[in-house]
Amino acid sequence: MPPIPPIPQPPEPNAKRQALWRVIFLSDTRAGRIFDVVLLWLIGISVITVALESVEELRATFGNTLVLAEWAFTLIFTVEYLLRLWVVRRRWRYAASFFGLVDLISILPSWLELVVPDAHYFLALRVLRLMRMFRILRMAGHVEEAAVLVAALNASRRKIIVFFVSILSLVCVEGTIMYVLERGTNSGFSNIPQSIYWAIVTITTVGYGDISPVTIAGKVMASIIMLTGFAIIAVPTGIVTSELNRRATATEVDHRCCGECGCVGHLGAAIYCHQCGRELTT
Amino acid sequence: MPPIPPIPQPPEPNAKRQALWRVIFLSDTRAGRIFDVVLLWLIGISVITVALESVEELRATFGNTLVLAEWAFTLIFTVEYLLRLWVVRRRWRYAASFFGLVDLISILPSWLELVVPDAHYFLALRVLRLMRMFRILRMAGHVEEAAVLVAALNASRRKIIVFFVSILSLVCVEGTIMYVLERGTNSGFSNIPQSIYWAIVTITTVGYGDISPVTIAGKVMASIIMLTGFAIIAVPTGIVTSELNRRATATEVDHRCCGECGCVGHLGAAIYCHQCGRELTT
Amino acid sequence: MPPIPPIPQPPEPNAKRQALWRVIFLSDTRAGRIFDVVLLWLIGISVITVALESVEELRATFGNTLVLAEWAFTLIFTVEYLLRLWVVRRRWRYAASFFGLVDLISILPSWLELVVPDAHYFLALRVLRLMRMFRILRMAGHVEEAAVLVAALNASRRKIIVFFVSILSLVCVEGTIMYVLERGTNSGFSNIPQSIYWAIVTITTVGYGDISPVTIAGKVMASIIMLTGFAIIAVPTGIVTSELNRRATATEVDHRCCGECGCVGHLGAAIYCHQCGRELTT
Amino acid sequence: MPPIPPIPQPPEPNAKRQALWRVIFLSDTRAGRIFDVVLLWLIGISVITVALESVEELRATFGNTLVLAEWAFTLIFTVEYLLRLWVVRRRWRYAASFFGLVDLISILPSWLELVVPDAHYFLALRVLRLMRMFRILRMAGHVEEAAVLVAALNASRRKIIVFFVSILSLVCVEGTIMYVLERGTNSGFSNIPQSIYWAIVTITTVGYGDISPVTIAGKVMASIIMLTGFAIIAVPTGIVTSELNRRATATEVDHRCCGECGCVGHLGAAIYCHQCGRELTT
Repeated sequence: MPPIPPIPQPPEPNAKRQALWRVIFLSDTRAGRIFDVVLLWLIGISVITVALESVEELRATFGNTLVLAEWAFTLIFTVEYLLRLWVVRRRWRYAASFFGLVDLISILPSWLELVVPDAHYFLALRVLRLMRMFRILRMAGHVEEAAVLVAALNASRRKIIVFFVSILSLVCVEGTIMYVLERGTNSGFSNIPQSIYWAIVTITTVGYGDISPVTIAGKVMASIIMLTGFAIIAVPTGIVTSELNRRATATEVDHRCCGECGCVGHLGAAIYCHQCGRELTT
Repeated sequence: MPPIPPIPQPPEPNAKRQALWRVIFLSDTRAGRIFDVVLLWLIGISVITVALESVEELRATFGNTLVLAEWAFTLIFTVEYLLRLWVVRRRWRYAASFFGLVDLISILPSWLELVVPDAHYFLALRVLRLMRMFRILRMAGHVEEAAVLVAALNASRRKIIVFFVSILSLVCVEGTIMYVLERGTNSGFSNIPQSIYWAIVTITTVGYGDISPVTIAGKVMASIIMLTGFAIIAVPTGIVTSELNRRATATEVDHRCCGECGCVGHLGAAIYCHQCGRELTT
Repeated sequence: MPPIPPIPQPPEPNAKRQALWRVIFLSDTRAGRIFDVVLLWLIGISVITVALESVEELRATFGNTLVLAEWAFTLIFTVEYLLRLWVVRRRWRYAASFFGLVDLISILPSWLELVVPDAHYFLALRVLRLMRMFRILRMAGHVEEAAVLVAALNASRRKIIVFFVSILSLVCVEGTIMYVLERGTNSGFSNIPQSIYWAIVTITTVGYGDISPVTIAGKVMASIIMLTGFAIIAVPTGIVTSELNRRATATEVDHRCCGECGCVGHLGAAIYCHQCGRELTT
Repeated sequence: MPPIPPIPQPPEPNAKRQALWRVIFLSDTRAGRIFDVVLLWLIGISVITVALESVEELRATFGNTLVLAEWAFTLIFTVEYLLRLWVVRRRWRYAASFFGLVDLISILPSWLELVVPDAHYFLALRVLRLMRMFRILRMAGHVEEAAVLVAALNASRRKIIVFFVSILSLVCVEGTIMYVLERGTNSGFSNIPQSIYWAIVTITTVGYGDISPVTIAGKVMASIIMLTGFAIIAVPTGIVTSELNRRATATEVDHRCCGECGCVGHLGAAIYCHQCGRELTT
């Protein structure tokens, strides 16, 4: 995934729509910055409203106020969504984009609740809208940092996939063995899927303790699983660190492009192209 | 262990057996790819069947269907195993190879159950057969990544062995001390093996909480153990990361020295010296 | 934050005040060192006194002694604070400095308790005064080490902020999903804030087990959260390690290029080129 | 600490004692190797005997046999200890050496038990004698690996001390705050030392769950503590990894010593001394 989805294109020259587009989608004007900051605060408060509404004691006392607030936010965000749809040039493209979908998800649950009960709790997914914050953070230069992180994770993707396939096989095997050892004595290991769940809780070192071995054989096996997990937890860390590291040192390779053969990836100190031997110009 | 065991040799020229061998062991024909994909799906579904069969509520309702499905899978895999045995050139060598044993293990429990009850739960070990997936992943270039991981773990083997011998000594000493401190007051530390189990749970930061210190001395000692464990958990991560790192950078700059200007630190792909532009000799 | 706040300036030439300033703020005289060591012991003992006073059994028996000791420490530290205020040149500047505030915080709770009950437990914040220890450690060369750590954390600040904003969004989304899945069946997930708390406990691998999923859907979702958390925990480690690494290697080989042969990669301490033997110019 | 204590000096020329010394302290003869392997097995079995003897069910049935076995091991090890004392040249020096003390500790508890009851459980400390194993591992080249680990931990000593002083201050502050927040409502936070214990359990991500916050303020604070701990756990890992890394790349600096100026630390590719410019001889 690209660290930040591109900003939807401005509409055809049309004084009003283009000005509105600038305010809504960019942050380079005073109005645009105010719009962004107000929006982020509204999103933040609306998420907190949904979260508070789920607390029974608060719902009993402030129920009506909270429901009203939720609907107010939904209306504001719906108007905003329609405005966004109106000002962009290609409507479907925006609606199908990452932020377009997130914007829709953050208003849909309220409307859906008129049909499906309890759907409105998904309003808390509005928190995803806070990712717009990254756009504002970009101004503060924070996003380049995120880009490095995302790029490092992206580059390690294959290693991480292989790692997860191995881990999944491992927890299946471990879960089955524990099931055979603990079955009967321990209600926590009453079936294989449950035992696999336990193996995941253990190997990630979360260790809730809702299920734990009681037989001697089970404890011995669990000890082996934990000690192996100890070495295994080192692997994803190693992958990410090594990748971040490579990037840090890779800056010693600059972005000059040889005028002769067009190759890139020269050492910062290089004077001549390492592929064709021609002198490098900056 | 080599990341992927070698493919068993093809049989002596024999049109039928060789064609079958190609379908079963390779993935370079359309039939071979279909065979592999169908097999992986069968393995996946059979593992899920065994897992579901262990859930009592499901066994009560769908028991017969699940048992039937299990036997169907066992028969299919038995036929497949016999076919594999038939088409390879050296039968014993295949039977004793890693995948040969895994193939046997995945059918044996069903047949064993006719004699030993409950053996069939080990059918879940069929999940090991999914490792064949790595052969298909190889086509997608994922296996090279795995090879790097396995090589890094392999190269760190000695450091990891020394680390584990030290950890095992440490948990024995810690378990004994906790046993002496908590014995009598706390039924969780009723004997030394149990206390060692607790020390392993603690030092790996799993922390189930099924056993935890209750005396003041025990809590002080546990605090010391946890804080030490904090530093210790850094060690395997350091070992693996450092090894992965060494590999990542080692492929980048080689040790060639320019015959003209004597400078070092050339990129692995460099043909000409980046300092004087002369051709590099190996 | 700078690793160690600067020492407040000495007062205007005034024999008595300046001598006292030297004893209190520096450690370069015999009297100054004795003052520092006695102070650290007093701080340590006073923190332990507050901690012990909070244990009911001890309060019942030694209550009066402990209260007396607390007031004795408060009086000593109050006198010390007033002396510090007296000897420094710019009083407000000291009072508003980091150590000035810490010194105030460590005496205020006692005096506040005359008005607000239970305020005195904040006396345990006196432990912050132990940070003066870093000043003494400086003599032993330990502080340079701390400076490297603080600098590495500081340099990674932006990456860590982006990481935490992402983690906070993630736990909100995960908490909401778990709330929807477990609500009704499991009193631990009775509202969204509680579910978010659970998500934090899980993703950091702490895993108390006071709340844990009971439904099948909840356990499947929890497994996914834990396995993702497994990869996520690698990120801050990668950030810090990579930064520490860059610092470690950056001090070793500099970017000077030999004027004679043009080679790079000289040791920071090198005077002559290691390839052609010519003197290196900066 | 040096990775492996030096072997005690051989006795003055005396055919019998010197031959015995060779068998007991070295492993370069057939008899010496047999002695070492038999000894390691005896140690291993004696540790297991002590561990099993602590299990009540086993003590009830095999009590006498286990006590007998324990005394047999004690007698064997006592004879061995006296022999060691007899054959070395400087007796006090051996007795006061690391392995000398460990040898004594592994027999003392049995004799002490004649006076102090229950002392014999410390016999499990015999496991420390297994560290002799490292001497045998040396032959297999495993000890060089351990030496790198120990050296890396040693070099990071100062950073780790500063880190632990900071962590200890942090858990004191966090424990006090949680005590103030949870006191009264939650018996788990009934006093400050207990709250500090909880903070240690949390920040190390062990998370037993024997104590966990119940108030809203406590849960918010705990969430902050856990998320901070998340970043903090990265620090020791970063320290150790960075140190191991530096060592891995530092091998690019060889051990040649300049014949002219006597300086060391030349790059592996260096032809001339980087300090005086003279040619380097191997």
